[in-house]
This record gives sequence, C-alpha cells and structure tokens, in this order.
Amino acid sequence: MNDDYFMKMALKEAEKAFQSDEVPVGAVVVFQDRIIARAHNLSERLNDVTAHAEMQAITSAMNMLGAKYLSGCTIYVTVEPCIMCAGALGWSQISRIVYGASDEKRGYSLFSPSPLHPKTEVTRGIMEKECSQLMSSFFKGKR
Amino acid sequence: MNDDYFMKMALKEAEKAFQSDEVPVGAVVVFQDRIIARAHNLSERLNDVTAHAEMQAITSAMNMLGAKYLSGCTIYVTVEPCIMCAGALGWSQISRIVYGASDEKRGYSLFSPSPLHPKTEVTRGIMEKECSQLMSSFFKGKR
Repeated sequence: MNDDYFMKMALKEAEKAFQSDEVPVGAVVVFQDRIIARAHNLSERLNDVTAHAEMQAITSAMNMLGAKYLSGCTIYVTVEPCIMCAGALGWSQISRIVYGASDEKRGYSLFSPSPLHPKTEVTRGIMEKECSQLMSSFFKGKR
Repeated sequence: MNDDYFMKMALKEAEKAFQSDEVPVGAVVVFQDRIIARAHNLSERLNDVTAHAEMQAITSAMNMLGAKYLSGCTIYVTVEPCIMCAGALGWSQISRIVYGASDEKRGYSLFSPSPLHPKTEVTRGIMEKECSQLMSSFFKGKR
C-alpha cells in the first residue's frame, strides 16, 4: 500500500470515466491506509461542470467521516486539480494531495497565491505516464 | 426587475443561511429575467465545504436548463465568490456575475490570472451595505 497502489485505484476510476466518454480523471481519498471515497468525472452525464472527480471524492469523504475537514486524509488524483477543485481542497484542509499528470492549461499551479492550505503537502508525477496517456488517448479520439 | 431586485432575492437566501447558523451567503441565477435557481450556504448542515451557495446555484441552474453551460445567465451572490466558486463559474461560462460585498480575505479577485471566462462581465457593490452587514452581524455573534 504505497502511492503507486492508490494511484492505480484512481486510474481505475479514470478508466470508468473514459468508458463513459467523460474526460478521464479519477480520484480516491485515503484515510489511515483505507480508501474512504472513490469518484470519477461525471460532468457530461450530469450536465454539471462541478461534477469533477475531486469534488465528488471530497464530498463523499466528508460524508463518510461526518466532518467538514479532511485533515489526516490524502487524495490521489490522476490529473493536476483545476482551480475550482484546488479551492475545494483548500477549504477541506486535506493533509496531502498526490497527482499523476500535470495540466499545463488548467492546473491550479498556474494561479497565485496558492489556493491550498499552507500545511497541505503535494506530490506530483506518480504514475504520470499512465495518467497522461489516458488523457491523450481520450482527446485524440475527439479530433 | 433590476440588479437591486435580484440581489434582494439573493439576500433572502443569505438570511435563511443566517437563521441556520451558516455563514450568510445567498445566490440566485437568472435567465431571461426569471430566477431559475436559488441557494444558500449549507456547509455546516451538510458537513461539506463544497456546499457554498454559488456551487449549489450553479448545479441547480444547469439541471434546470439541462445544459453544462450558463451562457445567457447572471448569478447574483451576496458576497464575492471564493476561488472554488469562481473556478466553477469559469467552467460554466456564465455571462454575468453580480455581487454585493467584497471578500478581502478569500475573494477570487485576490488570485491571478482570473479564473473566470474572458467573456464574463462582473458587477460589484450592488446592495453592498446590506450584504456586508449580514456578514458582520454573523461574525460578531460568533465572538
């Protein structure tokens, strides 16, 4: 049970999104080495731009814990969060964010100041190749 | 039916939040001079940091229109949106944002680049006094 293991679980979620013709992003939230929430992007199915994988995973983890804060939790997400999702992660005070592929057009790290909580630790590039390949295949199929 | 009228409707929503001991922010979404969504902050009741008034109003308006984009719509919100909500409004491509009080600590305008869609028009300061007084009363009661 390490970062690669949990990112693989997030990738499984992303593959579900891919199969439903959604931008393939998946996320899991981990607390005390257990996955407490899994989600994938549902923007098209729900006609809702707020239905990103991270937003759903955050809401679901909060429901699970019965708490408004995710301190002690880690989110694994296949692609760098956008500014909306990073804003939500900031409010949640999540302890750690692990992501696979960077998003050079829409990623939160393009913005300043950082929307994250100052104590949140960020790890980038876990299974980056697999995460970005899934995105490339998706957008290639759209052209 | 002008900006003051719709902001009053947003303030009514904010008052509902106040009465439920939630940070008093309210929002309405207007399309073709009709209110198609109303919401107030429910973060405490739902234990969910993503349950801001704007997020709920956006999701509700998209459901109402059956569309992922809110072009042609205006959101009236009593307080300047945070970066999460502004990110969501950016994805929605909403035509116009009207807000009452500025949020000097958490408002989206502290961030750059702007998370909004380049075509989104922003109007600030509508019924500013009423909107900010409601916030001040709330936080005064908390001390």
